[in-house]
Amino acid sequence: MDPNVRPETMQRITTPELAQAFIDEQITSLRRQIGDGKVLLALSGGVDSSVVAALLIKAIGAQLYCVHVNHGLLRKGEPEQVIKVFRDELNAKLIYVDAVDRFLNKLAGVSDPEQKRKIIGSEFIRVFEEETRKLEGIRFLAQGTIYPDILESNAAVKAHHNVGGLPDDLQFELVEPVKLLYKDEVRMVGKTLGLPDSMVYRQPFPGPGLGVRCTGAITRDRLEAVRESDAILREEFSKAGLEGKVWQYFTIVPDYLSTGIKDGHRTYEWPVIIRAVNSVDATAATIEEIPYSLLTRITNRILDEVCGVNRVLYDLSPKPVATIEWE
Amino acid sequence: MDPNVRPETMQRITTPELAQAFIDEQITSLRRQIGDGKVLLALSGGVDSSVVAALLIKAIGAQLYCVHVNHGLLRKGEPEQVIKVFRDELNAKLIYVDAVDRFLNKLAGVSDPEQKRKIIGSEFIRVFEEETRKLEGIRFLAQGTIYPDILESNAAVKAHHNVGGLPDDLQFELVEPVKLLYKDEVRMVGKTLGLPDSMVYRQPFPGPGLGVRCTGAITRDRLEAVRESDAILREEFSKAGLEGKVWQYFTIVPDYLSTGIKDGHRTYEWPVIIRAVNSVDATAATIEEIPYSLLTRITNRILDEVCGVNRVLYDLSPKPVATIEWE
Repeated sequence: MDPNVRPETMQRITTPELAQAFIDEQITSLRRQIGDGKVLLALSGGVDSSVVAALLIKAIGAQLYCVHVNHGLLRKGEPEQVIKVFRDELNAKLIYVDAVDRFLNKLAGVSDPEQKRKIIGSEFIRVFEEETRKLEGIRFLAQGTIYPDILESNAAVKAHHNVGGLPDDLQFELVEPVKLLYKDEVRMVGKTLGLPDSMVYRQPFPGPGLGVRCTGAITRDRLEAVRESDAILREEFSKAGLEGKVWQYFTIVPDYLSTGIKDGHRTYEWPVIIRAVNSVDATAATIEEIPYSLLTRITNRILDEVCGVNRVLYDLSPKPVATIEWE
Repeated sequence: MDPNVRPETMQRITTPELAQAFIDEQITSLRRQIGDGKVLLALSGGVDSSVVAALLIKAIGAQLYCVHVNHGLLRKGEPEQVIKVFRDELNAKLIYVDAVDRFLNKLAGVSDPEQKRKIIGSEFIRVFEEETRKLEGIRFLAQGTIYPDILESNAAVKAHHNVGGLPDDLQFELVEPVKLLYKDEVRMVGKTLGLPDSMVYRQPFPGPGLGVRCTGAITRDRLEAVRESDAILREEFSKAGLEGKVWQYFTIVPDYLSTGIKDGHRTYEWPVIIRAVNSVDATAATIEEIPYSLLTRITNRILDEVCGVNRVLYDLSPKPVATIEWE
């Protein structure tokens, strides 16, 4: 039987009871696979890697080493949340790597989207490799692979999004406890494991993070405008009860200026673009019809609170003809 | 008595009767001023110059020479409407100057907004001067100056928007029949003169035309995207009954690209930005809350019908902090 094919008999995990059964089963099989070995995990803070971390903490506790790389392209409050949940509350061995300067220096002046993605991807592997070499006796590498990743890899649509590309002398045995689960099942398992809702129901977030939403060549001040406006959008969506209802929402700050007026003086600043879409599987998307009262509140807050911004726009484009992200 | 100060006793023209009285009075005084002289008028197609043209046609008929310069930055259908109304219906002597190539060649590669404005303004004067020199025995220059122009010139806020800067050897006596009227009065007079609503209630349109809405360096293909998307917006607003209700609405196409997807292939095209604002005097503006059903229809038409476009956005920004135009 192919271990990468979900058996037809496998029941969809739709209740806390089914999730608990899955957790118990995985704890047994993880302990059997790992024994007293050491396991390494790249913990992004996304739902998949967070659920794998929480499962492994239950199964093997201190044998797990989590590495959280802050590449400067995370959303506001995310590195802090990873530290709070995993180091402070779950007592995980968490190695926090502040690689912000390193990534942003590498990305300085690079405007081509593909080039940006490559730099972020390869630099991530390099940082992770360096941290790995500092540790001794690691035999296992845990990954938050989920079933759609496997289906996509099989279809050769895109490269597997988890950690690949490590050098030959760093060969690990893979630990992938949620690789046969769909996203909704991973969420149910995460909730049953006691992870906070903000982690379990986190929106999909691109691998290159805010880097592709700070379109063109990334600068620190504009990246800050992306992060701050995104935080305002998320806060207002949450207050309005839209969190978990709208599939994906975020802001983009393109490297484009237009005129404005502040205190009688002409300004020349960036626009913030709001994107909020609904989708089943990301191949097609429609926009959320955000009420104008909420749009106005978000607009006013962004214009008040975010430096370097004089306009706010709402992206009305469906996918296709547009894509969800801008680059 | 200063001829540029509106007498306090002058009644506001709010009815067709008052407009007709004003028209009769002006016809008499225009005939007295002009005698059998020849009058030149730069006819843009905007409400002010159109009303002056219609008044003069009534007063002095064939002694009026209208020059309409098509600088390539007019809205879809505007040059055609000027020809239809003034040449075909009112039998005016209309000199139509196709200066499209001339303007666009001068503007090629120029991205600075102030520079663009200067080129459009000075080239306009040059074209007008050339046409003027072809005519013989012109003594008068008619202008669509209105009272707010005079008030603004007095306050030295901005340069007078009508034809100025002609060389010294081209000195004319000015004919400014609507210079003491407010905009609403000019409209009432225009309606009473029988001008079509689409001309009388035309939205305010910047001197440099679509040139400042094709932001950055103007290219012919992107200018076409501005013109076509603007025409779709106006058509849909008209169908939805918003014409004459929303103060100003138009589209902007910035020289900025983002990714999209068409027939399974990646595209890299422009966004169209919709601007629709309400204002009393243009010093402050709020956005029109366009219903989503209408926004969706406009978005789909633009994505379907306009070449080189893969996104549509709605500008949510009030003035201040933004301005109404983008450059």
